[in-house]
Amino acid sequence: MGLKSKDLVGIKELDAADIELILDTASGFKDVLTRDIKKVPALRGKTTVNLFYEPSTRTRTSFELAAKRLSTDVINVSVSTSSVVKGESLRDTALTIQALGADFIVVRHSCSGVAHFLAKNLDASVVNAGDGTNEHPTQALLDLFTIMEKRHVVRDLDVAIVGDILHSRVAKSNIYALKKLGARVRLIGPPTLVPAFMRELGVDVYTDMDEGLRDADIVMMLRIQMERQGRGFFPSTVEYFRNWGLTAERLAKAKKNALVMHPGPMNRGVEIASDVADGLRSVILEQVTNGLAVRMAVLYLLAGVKG
Amino acid sequence: MGLKSKDLVGIKELDAADIELILDTASGFKDVLTRDIKKVPALRGKTTVNLFYEPSTRTRTSFELAAKRLSTDVINVSVSTSSVVKGESLRDTALTIQALGADFIVVRHSCSGVAHFLAKNLDASVVNAGDGTNEHPTQALLDLFTIMEKRHVVRDLDVAIVGDILHSRVAKSNIYALKKLGARVRLIGPPTLVPAFMRELGVDVYTDMDEGLRDADIVMMLRIQMERQGRGFFPSTVEYFRNWGLTAERLAKAKKNALVMHPGPMNRGVEIASDVADGLRSVILEQVTNGLAVRMAVLYLLAGVKG
Amino acid sequence: MGLKSKDLVGIKELDAADIELILDTASGFKDVLTRDIKKVPALRGKTTVNLFYEPSTRTRTSFELAAKRLSTDVINVSVSTSSVVKGESLRDTALTIQALGADFIVVRHSCSGVAHFLAKNLDASVVNAGDGTNEHPTQALLDLFTIMEKRHVVRDLDVAIVGDILHSRVAKSNIYALKKLGARVRLIGPPTLVPAFMRELGVDVYTDMDEGLRDADIVMMLRIQMERQGRGFFPSTVEYFRNWGLTAERLAKAKKNALVMHPGPMNRGVEIASDVADGLRSVILEQVTNGLAVRMAVLYLLAGVKG
Repeated sequence: MGLKSKDLVGIKELDAADIELILDTASGFKDVLTRDIKKVPALRGKTTVNLFYEPSTRTRTSFELAAKRLSTDVINVSVSTSSVVKGESLRDTALTIQALGADFIVVRHSCSGVAHFLAKNLDASVVNAGDGTNEHPTQALLDLFTIMEKRHVVRDLDVAIVGDILHSRVAKSNIYALKKLGARVRLIGPPTLVPAFMRELGVDVYTDMDEGLRDADIVMMLRIQMERQGRGFFPSTVEYFRNWGLTAERLAKAKKNALVMHPGPMNRGVEIASDVADGLRSVILEQVTNGLAVRMAVLYLLAGVKG
Repeated sequence: MGLKSKDLVGIKELDAADIELILDTASGFKDVLTRDIKKVPALRGKTTVNLFYEPSTRTRTSFELAAKRLSTDVINVSVSTSSVVKGESLRDTALTIQALGADFIVVRHSCSGVAHFLAKNLDASVVNAGDGTNEHPTQALLDLFTIMEKRHVVRDLDVAIVGDILHSRVAKSNIYALKKLGARVRLIGPPTLVPAFMRELGVDVYTDMDEGLRDADIVMMLRIQMERQGRGFFPSTVEYFRNWGLTAERLAKAKKNALVMHPGPMNRGVEIASDVADGLRSVILEQVTNGLAVRMAVLYLLAGVKG
Repeated sequence: MGLKSKDLVGIKELDAADIELILDTASGFKDVLTRDIKKVPALRGKTTVNLFYEPSTRTRTSFELAAKRLSTDVINVSVSTSSVVKGESLRDTALTIQALGADFIVVRHSCSGVAHFLAKNLDASVVNAGDGTNEHPTQALLDLFTIMEKRHVVRDLDVAIVGDILHSRVAKSNIYALKKLGARVRLIGPPTLVPAFMRELGVDVYTDMDEGLRDADIVMMLRIQMERQGRGFFPSTVEYFRNWGLTAERLAKAKKNALVMHPGPMNRGVEIASDVADGLRSVILEQVTNGLAVRMAVLYLLAGVKG
């Protein structure tokens, strides 16, 4: 029993069994990460290419380490040093990387749909590391893994996602994933960033944070893109923090043992207060560690699909 | 029996026996690339440094993978993050890299002659990954390998090279290589980019593409540098395509089974029509795969020279 | 018997026994570097992250190779491609890297004190690869190693350090290290770059180079930052060379067998004449090779502290 697709393009395409298989497999890899020798020879001789059209430390590094700990060779291709400058088409770049023998192409791109497009055009396994405002599936998987570790079950949890939902691929992947595993999701933020039509996704929408956080089991904060400031989305970061920043006082509205999550990198004092980020309920650094285990699981399982 | 030089600076310096040895060795490595574990321990403990003064995805990645599949450690040094900014001389940079224990220095530079200069000044093996408008020897070797795979022999083939020959190190290396193995070479392009004096290289020169392609066995397209547009070389890319772009109709002038080659990255619709690039006669993606095998062969054989 | 601290933030924090332990250990690793297979499996499964907020070829490459030759996995994070751009705090970036399982974080930063700050905030071992104008401890250690190899003892040697001492972390680390091992240190340079108050470090200060070099055992040249030119530190590089550039004539003032050292990258004709840089007394390239052995020793010994 394995995954059904050679690619991971989005949570939308997975069913609950797929998600559970990835989380179970990640559990085994998390044990590996606590050993003295944190590597397994599972995918020796295979090649992973990180094809990043947007800058990223955290996600690129996490995939690079995951791939190395499975003993694959890793090549980093980033937009600034690549022939994208020379105007080659995305498809040609990807076909070239595949012709070089890449087994896994991990792609991040500012356009929604890129991972889907490549998956359709390539024999290699494509892993979406974030495409435009569409999806960032491994982020949602690591978030679920972190919740499972702490709560053991996702079903019937009340999960509040706070911030710029409209532009967030993290939010979108999490909404799909949480719903598939039976959680209830609430979105909180200014109406410019959390439009009412999002209710169609089967979620509740709040503009008042105190109300939205009430009795939540999980509080997922999103990163605010500073460049949206003063562009009609919200007046200023000070204003934003006053209304939707997560403070200890506000967190008190949620359940006593509510978890605080953030995909990083954080803007302390903008979407989250420093004492909350570093507080006892925060699992933000555990999310980072779990990301490694989840990405190892994804690469490992996709390799199984191709046999 | 091995190579005679510790370096690969150009095809000009090789004789037919050297070229054939590299192609034969590459053939063995191509088999390795089809295995499940695409690595050999041949050069474990050796170090390859990619010293790139020009941006490159394709060639750098190909060398990086070739070096890793031979189990060498690989270090990438690219101009933008290097101390070149600080004004250190090229020779000092290279001597430093050698003092760090590099066995192979793969160099790309915008100045012709750089590979030659480093080869003379270093004990490490220097591999030219493209120097100015001079040579790009591994590209010619992979082109020959691809031709050999399809036609089994190079002698007496008619090879047409089309485009900006004047500025092309790929063209120059291919002209040397093809002549050494007994092919006949025709150059095709606007007179500004294929000057008549090139006949001195022992080739035919055509400005009319239909005429030049007649009964050719191989059609090698070159990338057009967009920045030459409107600078006196040719009026516009539209004009260029109309006269020297490879269309299905034009390709019909060549032999029925003529191969279409391109070193990439391609400008579809400028030097080559999309349907031809993706057509049955195109071996463009096979060239990429073969590049890996050829580069493994070059590193492996150079290591043998140094013992 | 090992090091006392999990980190190497500066020479200031080491005692003579620590320094000698590192140099002894480096001696063993230097032997490894002369073997055909220049790797040891000592730290297999561990992870090194190079976190560079300033561009660097030489130091980053040296650490990368040292880490690879100890068989650790290596990840490079450089400022230009990192989320620093997105405004994440240094501490959050470092905590994230640690959460990804980094055992060693090698950090270079333009602010003095960064390595110290990270060492205090992280469980991972922090190695200072240069922080502002404060310290660059592995450079001083490789300089000492080179002196020991040639002179067998550091005690009672007369060491002249020439150039921009004020802004030099290399000079500062060397002053601490040389004094701890019992050498006598003289600083030479224009009074703007070698202020008299530096005497408080227990060194002699000279503005006249001929005088300062008299009977020196070791002449350590520093790189002149071209951007200080004409800013009140010195009028021009021509002027600088005339007064403080190391020529063969000037070197004759030092002891007959005096060693010439330079941390690189060199400005030939600015702080050092080309014939001296390449001369018989120069150990500049040996410094580079020794840097690799010293950095292997540092990583290896720090791993021992954490057990």
